Amino acid sequence: MIEKAVILSTGDELTTGRIADTNASFIADKLGAAGFDVVAVLVVGDYPDRIGWAWHEAMRLGEVVISTGGLGPTADDLTTETVAHVAGRRLFIDQGIAIRIREFFEAMGRVMPENNLKQAQFPEGAVIIPNALGTAPGFRLDLATAHGTRHLIVLPGVPREMKPMLEDHVLPWLQQTRGGDDVYRSHVFQTFGISESALDELVAGCVGPDEGRIAFRAAFPQISVRLTVHGPAAQVPQRLETLAARLRARVGAYAYGEGETTMEAVVGELLTQRGLTLALAESCTGGLVGNRITNVPGSSAYLKGGIVAYSNEVKQQSLDVRSETLAAHGAVSEEAAVEMATGVRRVLGADIGLAVTGIAGPEGGTPDKPVGTVCFALATASAVRHRRYQLWGSRDWVKLLSSQIALDWVRRFLLGMDPADPAILRR
Amino acid sequence: MIEKAVILSTGDELTTGRIADTNASFIADKLGAAGFDVVAVLVVGDYPDRIGWAWHEAMRLGEVVISTGGLGPTADDLTTETVAHVAGRRLFIDQGIAIRIREFFEAMGRVMPENNLKQAQFPEGAVIIPNALGTAPGFRLDLATAHGTRHLIVLPGVPREMKPMLEDHVLPWLQQTRGGDDVYRSHVFQTFGISESALDELVAGCVGPDEGRIAFRAAFPQISVRLTVHGPAAQVPQRLETLAARLRARVGAYAYGEGETTMEAVVGELLTQRGLTLALAESCTGGLVGNRITNVPGSSAYLKGGIVAYSNEVKQQSLDVRSETLAAHGAVSEEAAVEMATGVRRVLGADIGLAVTGIAGPEGGTPDKPVGTVCFALATASAVRHRRYQLWGSRDWVKLLSSQIALDWVRRFLLGMDPADPAILRR
Repeated sequence: MIEKAVILSTGDELTTGRIADTNASFIADKLGAAGFDVVAVLVVGDYPDRIGWAWHEAMRLGEVVISTGGLGPTADDLTTETVAHVAGRRLFIDQGIAIRIREFFEAMGRVMPENNLKQAQFPEGAVIIPNALGTAPGFRLDLATAHGTRHLIVLPGVPREMKPMLEDHVLPWLQQTRGGDDVYRSHVFQTFGISESALDELVAGCVGPDEGRIAFRAAFPQISVRLTVHGPAAQVPQRLETLAARLRARVGAYAYGEGETTMEAVVGELLTQRGLTLALAESCTGGLVGNRITNVPGSSAYLKGGIVAYSNEVKQQSLDVRSETLAAHGAVSEEAAVEMATGVRRVLGADIGLAVTGIAGPEGGTPDKPVGTVCFALATASAVRHRRYQLWGSRDWVKLLSSQIALDWVRRFLLGMDPADPAILRR
Repeated sequence: MIEKAVILSTGDELTTGRIADTNASFIADKLGAAGFDVVAVLVVGDYPDRIGWAWHEAMRLGEVVISTGGLGPTADDLTTETVAHVAGRRLFIDQGIAIRIREFFEAMGRVMPENNLKQAQFPEGAVIIPNALGTAPGFRLDLATAHGTRHLIVLPGVPREMKPMLEDHVLPWLQQTRGGDDVYRSHVFQTFGISESALDELVAGCVGPDEGRIAFRAAFPQISVRLTVHGPAAQVPQRLETLAARLRARVGAYAYGEGETTMEAVVGELLTQRGLTLALAESCTGGLVGNRITNVPGSSAYLKGGIVAYSNEVKQQSLDVRSETLAAHGAVSEEAAVEMATGVRRVLGADIGLAVTGIAGPEGGTPDKPVGTVCFALATASAVRHRRYQLWGSRDWVKLLSSQIALDWVRRFLLGMDPADPAILRR
């Protein structure tokens, strides 16, 4: 039975600190949810002896090894060769993949650089794992070793290519192959507006240690709560449903979605269901709210557009914010936010107008309005809600948190709640 | 001489994917900048056998091992015991530290839980590394092993405690103790508009294997090229400069910046230098260009604002795009882009108007204008440039690539190049 997994990340960018290893935490999270025990994560740079060491140790420690990185077309991409060496297998060129790589380049009107052919090389016996989004496929190699059977899974390091390969090919295969009678199933709640420790207190005692396991994962600005249940396949779905219902009742409106969803997708679904349109007036977020909304396919059906009013002139000319309001209260004020929201709603002809204006920092703060002061307003034909928040953190953090609050306002409004309720942002 | 380092991160939160290991990338970056070679990063959960394995391997691979995590007061904090075991040293309680921990709690008006005394335990021979911000000090243990002298450095896992301990105590000690004359220095070029493999071909042979090392890192949509040189401290700066000049000549205008910079920061610097302002008309990017520009502190000095014209009505009403243009050529056309760029420039009163309109997908493509068709226009008082591109990939990818092209257009225009030059996007 496959139980123990090792994650192996390859790339100089990781050992020189140029990027954090987010692939490893993504894979660890998915493996944990599927009931696998991640024994270790090994990270090495692009050197054959180091990659070789890592594979040797990984194959000693885990029944399955999932590797990312080192599949590119350049001379310092060494994973495939090293795996072949460690496994004692020769390399072959898969002609089908070679043709596909050539076609990939031709479709873009380009000639394939010859070194890209390297990405069509695999150790003998490898099962190819297709990559829908890039030229480097992955592969799996099942190997009999002195430690027992080992499953070597090799994926590219580009997260957007790796993630669907893991979820669509590797995890289903692992779950089917692992053996044993117990199954693991999990259910995820996406939350916003409550800190991890407050959430921990909120759900304390809700699920007994013998019933299931609750794990939190903070990926700013959202915290997900994962409930995992394991046991006989016939019982697990019902048990998961019962426990999820208990958790759902506890977490309440802090949960904006369930499963792998995003705040912007939830807002999009609600706007579509209600047949309403939205217009945005963004100051400190600079277009981030619009960007997130338009990340959802089909968002043109409900987003009329937005005005990024970064200067006071634009606030006045394009949004009809009155100069008296700006003079009396400043551009970062609930008063200005209200005029921005009503203005953009009218100018762009939408059902809902949403405005964000604030001080993202690091400069621009005052004693009255320190960095992190952000005002929100939501306007409809019949009502306006507004509120000022004191947020915290760096410039990107303030922007991202502001965009999340703005989207959560629309969600709560559409669900019949008061978005300006002061209890919402609970730390 | 101390050259090779291993980073060891301990904690179930890392192997279960609850958080990404940002400590390791922070330490790796600092060690790399100081010329140490990070051989590997090892991450294990809170199990004595796994922590023991990690320390054994780390001491084999590196002359210095820097560990974070596992220094808390609870039963699953096992680092100190494991290090003592691996090193064959007994534990002792440091009375001075024990008193300090008690005082730390008293200062907060609390009684110290007895298990916190665990944080005053150290292996015999340890040199204590003070922690100004928490109760858990770190320590260093110098050890003679079969592999040679090993320096074991143990720090807490809380980033805000660990970071000053590393920078104020560990790095100065390492630099003073390391011995040898060799230093490592690197120089980074940030590029755009050329694929990793084409870039690899472009720079091939430019730096000999004995002169320095070139490493690429693709973090879509930019690819960075890092040149690293090592040797005697007296020679390295000059050698680095010579090689960097050679690389610079090869990479040419594909390099938009040097060092740790971003396209939006470079565009901001150029706009500031020239005293020019910018206005954005975004369709398919939905606010992403504005979001990126406003990620740069001080961008309010040159960004007037933007109009996210997601619907045709907004394009007509807010940007004065003519209905005839939309009827004859469609919203995704160079003609519409030109009217959007000239319109937003005039409406928001900026020196430069920049427009992006395209089909991000997955829906909305036609045989004439498939998904990935994106048109750009840049307008000034005296000229307009425009071009249509056929981009590729998923919705976010098309959006991100479009935003990068849009920003690169402004950069190239400000540098006196033709942004609509068809040779720019070289894959």
